[in-house]
Amino acid sequence: MLGNTYGRMFRVTTCGESYGKALAAICDGVPPGLALCDADIQEELDKRRPGQSDIDSPRQETDQVQIFSGMRDGYTTGAPVGMIIYNVDTLPQHVKEYEDAKDLIRPGHAEYTYRIKYGDYVDWCGAGRASGRETAARVAAGAVAKKLLAREGIRVVAYVRQLMDITANVEEMSFEEREANSLKNEIFCPDLETAQKMIEFTRQVKEQGDTLGGVVEILTVGVPPGLGEPVFDKLSASLAKGLMSIPAVKGCEIGAGFGSTKMRGSECNDIPYMKDGKIRFRTNNSGGIDGGISNGEDIVVRIAVKPTSTISITQETVNMAILQDAELAAITRRDATICGRICAVAAAMTRITVLDHLMMWRGYDAVSGIEHKLGW
Amino acid sequence: MLGNTYGRMFRVTTCGESYGKALAAICDGVPPGLALCDADIQEELDKRRPGQSDIDSPRQETDQVQIFSGMRDGYTTGAPVGMIIYNVDTLPQHVKEYEDAKDLIRPGHAEYTYRIKYGDYVDWCGAGRASGRETAARVAAGAVAKKLLAREGIRVVAYVRQLMDITANVEEMSFEEREANSLKNEIFCPDLETAQKMIEFTRQVKEQGDTLGGVVEILTVGVPPGLGEPVFDKLSASLAKGLMSIPAVKGCEIGAGFGSTKMRGSECNDIPYMKDGKIRFRTNNSGGIDGGISNGEDIVVRIAVKPTSTISITQETVNMAILQDAELAAITRRDATICGRICAVAAAMTRITVLDHLMMWRGYDAVSGIEHKLGW
Amino acid sequence: MLGNTYGRMFRVTTCGESYGKALAAICDGVPPGLALCDADIQEELDKRRPGQSDIDSPRQETDQVQIFSGMRDGYTTGAPVGMIIYNVDTLPQHVKEYEDAKDLIRPGHAEYTYRIKYGDYVDWCGAGRASGRETAARVAAGAVAKKLLAREGIRVVAYVRQLMDITANVEEMSFEEREANSLKNEIFCPDLETAQKMIEFTRQVKEQGDTLGGVVEILTVGVPPGLGEPVFDKLSASLAKGLMSIPAVKGCEIGAGFGSTKMRGSECNDIPYMKDGKIRFRTNNSGGIDGGISNGEDIVVRIAVKPTSTISITQETVNMAILQDAELAAITRRDATICGRICAVAAAMTRITVLDHLMMWRGYDAVSGIEHKLGW
Amino acid sequence: MLGNTYGRMFRVTTCGESYGKALAAICDGVPPGLALCDADIQEELDKRRPGQSDIDSPRQETDQVQIFSGMRDGYTTGAPVGMIIYNVDTLPQHVKEYEDAKDLIRPGHAEYTYRIKYGDYVDWCGAGRASGRETAARVAAGAVAKKLLAREGIRVVAYVRQLMDITANVEEMSFEEREANSLKNEIFCPDLETAQKMIEFTRQVKEQGDTLGGVVEILTVGVPPGLGEPVFDKLSASLAKGLMSIPAVKGCEIGAGFGSTKMRGSECNDIPYMKDGKIRFRTNNSGGIDGGISNGEDIVVRIAVKPTSTISITQETVNMAILQDAELAAITRRDATICGRICAVAAAMTRITVLDHLMMWRGYDAVSGIEHKLGW
Repeated sequence: MLGNTYGRMFRVTTCGESYGKALAAICDGVPPGLALCDADIQEELDKRRPGQSDIDSPRQETDQVQIFSGMRDGYTTGAPVGMIIYNVDTLPQHVKEYEDAKDLIRPGHAEYTYRIKYGDYVDWCGAGRASGRETAARVAAGAVAKKLLAREGIRVVAYVRQLMDITANVEEMSFEEREANSLKNEIFCPDLETAQKMIEFTRQVKEQGDTLGGVVEILTVGVPPGLGEPVFDKLSASLAKGLMSIPAVKGCEIGAGFGSTKMRGSECNDIPYMKDGKIRFRTNNSGGIDGGISNGEDIVVRIAVKPTSTISITQETVNMAILQDAELAAITRRDATICGRICAVAAAMTRITVLDHLMMWRGYDAVSGIEHKLGW
Repeated sequence: MLGNTYGRMFRVTTCGESYGKALAAICDGVPPGLALCDADIQEELDKRRPGQSDIDSPRQETDQVQIFSGMRDGYTTGAPVGMIIYNVDTLPQHVKEYEDAKDLIRPGHAEYTYRIKYGDYVDWCGAGRASGRETAARVAAGAVAKKLLAREGIRVVAYVRQLMDITANVEEMSFEEREANSLKNEIFCPDLETAQKMIEFTRQVKEQGDTLGGVVEILTVGVPPGLGEPVFDKLSASLAKGLMSIPAVKGCEIGAGFGSTKMRGSECNDIPYMKDGKIRFRTNNSGGIDGGISNGEDIVVRIAVKPTSTISITQETVNMAILQDAELAAITRRDATICGRICAVAAAMTRITVLDHLMMWRGYDAVSGIEHKLGW
Repeated sequence: MLGNTYGRMFRVTTCGESYGKALAAICDGVPPGLALCDADIQEELDKRRPGQSDIDSPRQETDQVQIFSGMRDGYTTGAPVGMIIYNVDTLPQHVKEYEDAKDLIRPGHAEYTYRIKYGDYVDWCGAGRASGRETAARVAAGAVAKKLLAREGIRVVAYVRQLMDITANVEEMSFEEREANSLKNEIFCPDLETAQKMIEFTRQVKEQGDTLGGVVEILTVGVPPGLGEPVFDKLSASLAKGLMSIPAVKGCEIGAGFGSTKMRGSECNDIPYMKDGKIRFRTNNSGGIDGGISNGEDIVVRIAVKPTSTISITQETVNMAILQDAELAAITRRDATICGRICAVAAAMTRITVLDHLMMWRGYDAVSGIEHKLGW
Repeated sequence: MLGNTYGRMFRVTTCGESYGKALAAICDGVPPGLALCDADIQEELDKRRPGQSDIDSPRQETDQVQIFSGMRDGYTTGAPVGMIIYNVDTLPQHVKEYEDAKDLIRPGHAEYTYRIKYGDYVDWCGAGRASGRETAARVAAGAVAKKLLAREGIRVVAYVRQLMDITANVEEMSFEEREANSLKNEIFCPDLETAQKMIEFTRQVKEQGDTLGGVVEILTVGVPPGLGEPVFDKLSASLAKGLMSIPAVKGCEIGAGFGSTKMRGSECNDIPYMKDGKIRFRTNNSGGIDGGISNGEDIVVRIAVKPTSTISITQETVNMAILQDAELAAITRRDATICGRICAVAAAMTRITVLDHLMMWRGYDAVSGIEHKLGW
């Protein structure tokens, strides 16, 4: 496996599996002087922690994180910040269950592709590194990025925008409302009324043994105009990669996204105008990014989250050991939807990506000696 | 500007602007022994060349490419392949037009973000490096990847799937039909009847001074199961980055994509079964990628292309030099839609990305010594 | 701090400081199916562990390593291998000592450059990340590479070739002798008689409160011809970077190295000849690398290790807090020379670099389809 | 071939061979607003241009460079700067000579390793990409870096310090003298008297059909303290890689280098002291870099350049086509030593490396918000 490192300047490396001893993240590029403690990381981890509601997986992980490097007296030193989370709920009976079924492809999961790629040595327990559990390390790293971005006035919130056919109404809500409200329910939906409908519906579907997907929206505010390297490393392209690398994400759009394909140019173009000495735009179909570079408006990205693959309904499948058709029994320990829990991961990947671009730009800009005018 | 290099093993670096002297691409990682000539590159370049129909930009660029390194007697040598395309249609009257309007933001374009980022030294002529013209160099590099992938039996075709509300019906078409048909019309739509409707509609909208967007689908066949690095460098995430880095692309989805958010798990899961000794899937909602790794099915990706920003309708805007509201006159030299021409670029980025992953995997796999069984 | 990740395909990321909680290494690119256990890593760590002889630092670190990810039932799974080493000998009295002297530059150390770079938040304790202690994580990663290279028949040994003016005679020794003998004494010198002289001399110098440097030679055998990317990523250049990144290394040469500057071309050129159907060379002034690519001969690299900076003699210095000249008292806890302990680190960096190149080449070569003939 | 791109922030990609159509360099990361013209590049290229004296190769290349992208009205725009140099002295008779001898290994050259790696498709003409001719593209890129560093007050000069046993005396010379004097003679040695001896001796050796090597010293002044990423990407390690990637370089040392292995710690440690409010060092055994980070003193690096491999003396060799011992006739078109011409390349690689680190640090530092005090 390659590709366990992400970023160019703010660089995150992770390791760890669902039923391994521990997960870890190393953040390279953390500047000195940031006040940081385990609790800062824990706060974010708790947002994606399983076992907290009846629509999540019942797996009991405390997700206790320990920062073990890069610190002196409560402040970062500039050295890479290492964080480790030991797995605890890896009881033998669960391992046994996975071992018994290890040759059966669980439809929608990655058993087949991992088995092709890693052969008989693949980690068959709890999906191994393919498990959503690896994202705990991303969230830990994202918590470091969050604190750094806060100093620049950049904030990120992710929430469930749509669940199956139920769509939240958030247009009129401020960033603060979206953030505060999404923490008030287990589905991370800021439209509180709709959230109840979503939860209700999820419970129904769960009882039927089935699962749900939805759309998560990630809103980033406070990004100055100028972020993003405008050819291959566009801010939009970088965000797409970061977000599409999250398990279960099957699509990504920015601003009007796929909706813009049904607009004419005269409707889609965001018209600039002067406001309080700054250039602003009357609409935000661009999602805050023009030509791969942030334009000072809110950055709005949405991702498509597929329904959880693990269902409590018997499914046809293949036994990989004997290459024969087989049947997979219903599985009980599962999330009815991961839309809620994935919000913390989506916010983390967004923060890491934006911070990485901020550092790239600053390094580049500092040798230019040009003045950025235009009222900014 | 950073980020003009793409890929880890098959690595493409480009430079050049709309009204600069030339565009170039350097392909690193090209193996020795590939028969290659200028005409191989030209064939792909001609697919995105402007000035070929009344719905494209009237700019006359011959896009003559010259391979200037990495060759000996008609075969690649293993050294990096350098390719250069001199710009020809850069007449003073066009430069003058751009110069006169250089302080006005063209809505939907990147003048403002470039001006913020690069200051007064920004290349104001014809959008400079932000112009879609830079994609000619991508297409040249993609042509090299195309020939390499052909030896592995991997083929890519990109075509217009949807234009505004007009959707093509391609489900029943083979790869060969999609490829052959899409070359038969200027909108690159394999459903020939629908193609005519699209062209007709585009002409109407063009006469109204307006522009259109749409959805381009990229189909990749022949990819063996196993490609993709399953955490940050998932094949899906890498494709998303490559495709979202193309100008005007605002969204990307794989397989059922956003549609999967309206399915239940029991419906979305692709059921595996044995067929001719191989593991296959009854549906392809995954788009050929499970857990970030190819599963042997066709890889199906769609991108959202926004309507061309340049329109022949007067628009409100801002004059960046004096920071005042202004008006931008209608512009005549433009594409009514770029959906057709972008197909060659989307195919190129897909090829480069798939080849890069193939080389990564091969290098990794060659030190493992494991056998890949499972009938593959 | 950036740059805590090394390599392109076999990629090592480390973190941890001298007096932090723990050191860690994450190895990305480890193939599945490698039998690996903590003891494999421990064996290499023990070669650089302090406190084992009277010429080493008396710091008592057990350097107990725990592999916490990437494993299932004793074999690697393909997932990144995470390893952690908790620091134990970080008693408050030592911390106090460092705190009392934290504003004084210890001549030859990096206090000043770290303080300039990381400001007042720098980790002042035991040199923080600038301490040679960080190399424990490199050695852990190198132990993984060692096992992988062993399967390819590639072996590496590092030993002290010269200490001050005392030079070992190893020319006639086989790889096996050099390896076995260097483990027989605390200075890692395979010429056992000379080793005793070195140890004797080191003890004398230590009593005088002073320290010594020397030359470490790294011999790599079994590398097939063809490794190394021949422009910027020459095998020689990559080895130079890896080895010069080890603290205290001030020079690096390959083959005849600086000696070749005193030869004529007719003397320096290695003459090829046929031997047993293979192309071999009569001399090895090239050190096994021609044009940045391995030529099948032994790879011979030497590094210059400066005398340990920490001495038991009072030195003039500067107090950085008040920017005034000051005096630094003699320090007692120190290595009289690190030439011996650095051998394990040099071997580790060589292994990591060679493996990385092996994987790069294999990935590249696998898409070429050419035959490598020439009797190889 | 991989590895034709160098750097992380200021990133240089090159291509081109000895007898291909052209060489090119693309510089990514060039800021906007730098006044730049072909003549700026030409000035540096002329320093390594062949055919200018009787001790250089008689090949007549004008090395005319054309900047073809990244410019507008004489200033860089921020877009990548592309530069191309067409080869001119590639007459059929020379090609024929190379073709006739293409199966013979030229001792000291890379024919064998390239043939092993790239098979029968290798570029056999004039050493192809293994030729020193590829360094013209490095020099072109270095000229861009030179102008950017000049704005920061950072200057680099490279000169011949030693040729065989003849050593120049430069200790007392200022940077300006070294620079001015080294341009006064064809061997680039600032000690003018010694330069004459070197040239005289080179002529003698040339008449004997033989060649010479030597030591080139690279002096960098004006680097502020703080540059360099102190683990794997130490400034010293990065310089070592950049310099060791130059053809014919077999060793690299910084400051006292290998000489430090014969010093005691008390002698080798550079003693800091206060001078004019700044921390300075009484000696510079460190070569201006402590712990991988610049300390504000001059950065002094030396490289070992082996004698030119091409000699006018008949040599034994192997015919690779028939795998039999053979004889290689004397070759006449050659450099008697490349020590002089390599200076321009060494300076270029140093500049590119230092600029890259400057940009990395600035990007990192800009998010730290700390104050760098210590009188700097």
